[in-house]
Amino acid sequence: MSRLLIRNVSVLVVPEQGECRVDEAQDIHIQDDRIVAITWTSSPSASASASPSAFRAPSSAPVPGTGFVYEGSEVVDGRGLLAVPGLVNAHTHSPMVMMRGAAEDLAIEDWFNQRIWPMEVNLTPERVRVGARLACAEMLLGGVTTFVDHYFHADQIAAAAIESGIRADLAPTFFSTSTSSTSSSTSSTSSATSASAEAFEVARGLRGLHPRVTASLGPHATYTVSEGDLLRTAEVARAEGFRIHLHAAETDEQTRASLEKSGVTPIGVLERTGVLDAGVLVAHGCGIRPEDLPILERYAGRTAVASCPKVYLKLAMGEVTPVKGLVSAGVSVGVGTDGAAVHNTLDVWEAIRMVALTQKQRENDAEWMTLSDTLRLATRGSAAAAGLTGRVGVLEPGYQADIALVDLSAPHNQPLHDPRAALVYSVRAADVVTVLVAGQVVVRDRQLTTMDLQEVLADARSLAHTLVDLSSGGAIQHYEP
Amino acid sequence: MSRLLIRNVSVLVVPEQGECRVDEAQDIHIQDDRIVAITWTSSPSASASASPSAFRAPSSAPVPGTGFVYEGSEVVDGRGLLAVPGLVNAHTHSPMVMMRGAAEDLAIEDWFNQRIWPMEVNLTPERVRVGARLACAEMLLGGVTTFVDHYFHADQIAAAAIESGIRADLAPTFFSTSTSSTSSSTSSTSSATSASAEAFEVARGLRGLHPRVTASLGPHATYTVSEGDLLRTAEVARAEGFRIHLHAAETDEQTRASLEKSGVTPIGVLERTGVLDAGVLVAHGCGIRPEDLPILERYAGRTAVASCPKVYLKLAMGEVTPVKGLVSAGVSVGVGTDGAAVHNTLDVWEAIRMVALTQKQRENDAEWMTLSDTLRLATRGSAAAAGLTGRVGVLEPGYQADIALVDLSAPHNQPLHDPRAALVYSVRAADVVTVLVAGQVVVRDRQLTTMDLQEVLADARSLAHTLVDLSSGGAIQHYEP
Repeated sequence: MSRLLIRNVSVLVVPEQGECRVDEAQDIHIQDDRIVAITWTSSPSASASASPSAFRAPSSAPVPGTGFVYEGSEVVDGRGLLAVPGLVNAHTHSPMVMMRGAAEDLAIEDWFNQRIWPMEVNLTPERVRVGARLACAEMLLGGVTTFVDHYFHADQIAAAAIESGIRADLAPTFFSTSTSSTSSSTSSTSSATSASAEAFEVARGLRGLHPRVTASLGPHATYTVSEGDLLRTAEVARAEGFRIHLHAAETDEQTRASLEKSGVTPIGVLERTGVLDAGVLVAHGCGIRPEDLPILERYAGRTAVASCPKVYLKLAMGEVTPVKGLVSAGVSVGVGTDGAAVHNTLDVWEAIRMVALTQKQRENDAEWMTLSDTLRLATRGSAAAAGLTGRVGVLEPGYQADIALVDLSAPHNQPLHDPRAALVYSVRAADVVTVLVAGQVVVRDRQLTTMDLQEVLADARSLAHTLVDLSSGGAIQHYEP
Repeated sequence: MSRLLIRNVSVLVVPEQGECRVDEAQDIHIQDDRIVAITWTSSPSASASASPSAFRAPSSAPVPGTGFVYEGSEVVDGRGLLAVPGLVNAHTHSPMVMMRGAAEDLAIEDWFNQRIWPMEVNLTPERVRVGARLACAEMLLGGVTTFVDHYFHADQIAAAAIESGIRADLAPTFFSTSTSSTSSSTSSTSSATSASAEAFEVARGLRGLHPRVTASLGPHATYTVSEGDLLRTAEVARAEGFRIHLHAAETDEQTRASLEKSGVTPIGVLERTGVLDAGVLVAHGCGIRPEDLPILERYAGRTAVASCPKVYLKLAMGEVTPVKGLVSAGVSVGVGTDGAAVHNTLDVWEAIRMVALTQKQRENDAEWMTLSDTLRLATRGSAAAAGLTGRVGVLEPGYQADIALVDLSAPHNQPLHDPRAALVYSVRAADVVTVLVAGQVVVRDRQLTTMDLQEVLADARSLAHTLVDLSSGGAIQHYEP
């Protein structure tokens, strides 16, 4: 049994409803992978300084003789730091860091058809793994302790996650129709079916691989996967207890196209194929319409949507996720970055800020998506999107010890009238100093403890040119909503 | 005469039109406050590595015997770094860092009337200076070398700017009608006139104070300053060679109110009072209408608009600056943060990114506000907004040596397919390692050289509570567009 104590730290408390708060002078007691107690720091010097108004007195006094002793524990000094639930990147394609900055100033059609899908002809297991290692490094250094991934060669991503110490939910991705890697001919239905079968098999293989790795089923999208394959996906999901993670209703154009082609919205397709019934994480959902909300409400307990708004603005998609309607319908909403080939970073702080800003803009209401709303989305909401409700996203006894310690003392966060405002509107990923995942210190003093960062970077640099090579002339898929 | 050489650095080149590029392996030769030459690094090892496509070969070979010798120069090693023109914060209220995070989740009316203007009853010269010092520290550490300020007690802001080593254009701010600091009674016209006269006198006093300080006239806004006072401001500006910096057409609601009250838009008011003729920097301009553009076009050479879009989303103002129309009309557009009481940071990188994202969104065109467009706005555009065209914003011989050296080697910028994309979409203020203003190294290895940062922070913390005190019940002004 290993013990770790984060001593004398401020703690962000995110209740299920109402205002978030910060409790000062707390000790977080960790045994193995879990938080076992959070107690008041007993040292008389701990709470000597006057508390700004947004800090609250701790809710409970220390209990003598609880058995939480410092002897035998590794101690992390939390003085001057704020402990927040490790961030969850609720939707990404981690290996796409390899294409960062290589597909700029393009609308969604050209981004897919001229760049990304032609580039993805070049994917190999090695390149995916090298990219995933870099992605894990970037995320951990920025306080991200879980990522929800959707990509090819997911076994390689699992290896990178396990090595780096991060937590991951991985959805091996497949198309129904796909073009081969070197020609534009459409593959047959039988090979498409085998693509889904192969992806399911990868997902099965990821289960039980490591306590930090979970698996979902990953059909690419409602516009690239047939209803037959979605039906089969839902059957496998229900039979074997998987969740489904896919793109749907990314734009209103996709919703219009779906209505025209199949008579229902993409959400309607998810319902009639049983995907909603099986439990789903929908990426983006900017094209979700008001008439979809009553449908989603029926499956709300097992439905989540991930919002990645930097991407919607950058690709000029016209809409952002209708978070207010979704939340009202009881659907969980999480915050993601999407892949770095469009988001350019895997910086979840940036994604959180963009959600707050774009939601205020969308609803034309500055009093909506408050600091507390935003932090709840980013913690409890994203944990639900990851399928990890009750395990991560909250700092309470019984939860996994996935924790980021943030230093808010730099000029851009000072003076600190409200630490919650700092977390949403001024903090930078570089303010994260220490990160734990499942009780393991994976970032200490802003340095990765689990991987050699220079080696990770050198590997990525040496292969980067191979990923963006368009000389084959092929493409793995064609975008036509 | 002091000499400084930045050796073997990549340089961002921003032409007046067309694509920006990065020249590798350059030496930047600086004498006193200016760049005197940029030459190819002669060391054979300098350009040994293969250049990614976005890097170009230098445009000119080194000229032997030019007199640019390394002996006697201070040498800054630029290897692995990218030199960019020091950033210009084209519109801010620097001392408002003291209210950072103290006015959240409010619409513009309540933000002004419930928080900011009541808080500003508490302004004193000392508090303004302490805030300005913190603001200068934050900006310099993030690569900002010039800020365009609009606030009260501008002499105190000048003192902070001079001490910190930053460059500033300062507009001493005044209202025509104002409520006193402790009651709600409106002051008389005569005292309002004296408010403008007093502010003009402060502006005169700032001239010639220091080579890094320039002054503008600072009427607060078209909705808080009478046409009579705007007329007098324009007369003083023309007679004495000042520019004018004010808020106008911040929202479409303000434009509607102006049409109702005075029969013309806020831009129309600026024209008929002679403000446009005198030369103006308009903050925000989100309420600028298509019919305003032909008016602005007539004064384009001496008109600039500063866009601070994070603020427009956060306050749910409904619109962002119509940059495309303004640029088409020949008006310079710069990028600013506004005050940290609403923007929460003075991070100009963040502001630049928000301009790119919100402009693509506004025009529903992902191919607009390209990397090059954005970088041109952030450099040449912001320099014009500061009234410093030809002096800052460009790295060329003859320009002031205002330079930020950026390290793009961290995971969130790698692999580096396109350094321009990194500057717009993935860089963080914390990636700035070295900053020069007027040839002086003001940030070295991420540390301020000009001020004791811990002292600056301690002073700000000790006074922060005095700024946000609402107990007086007064307000310096009332918002009613």
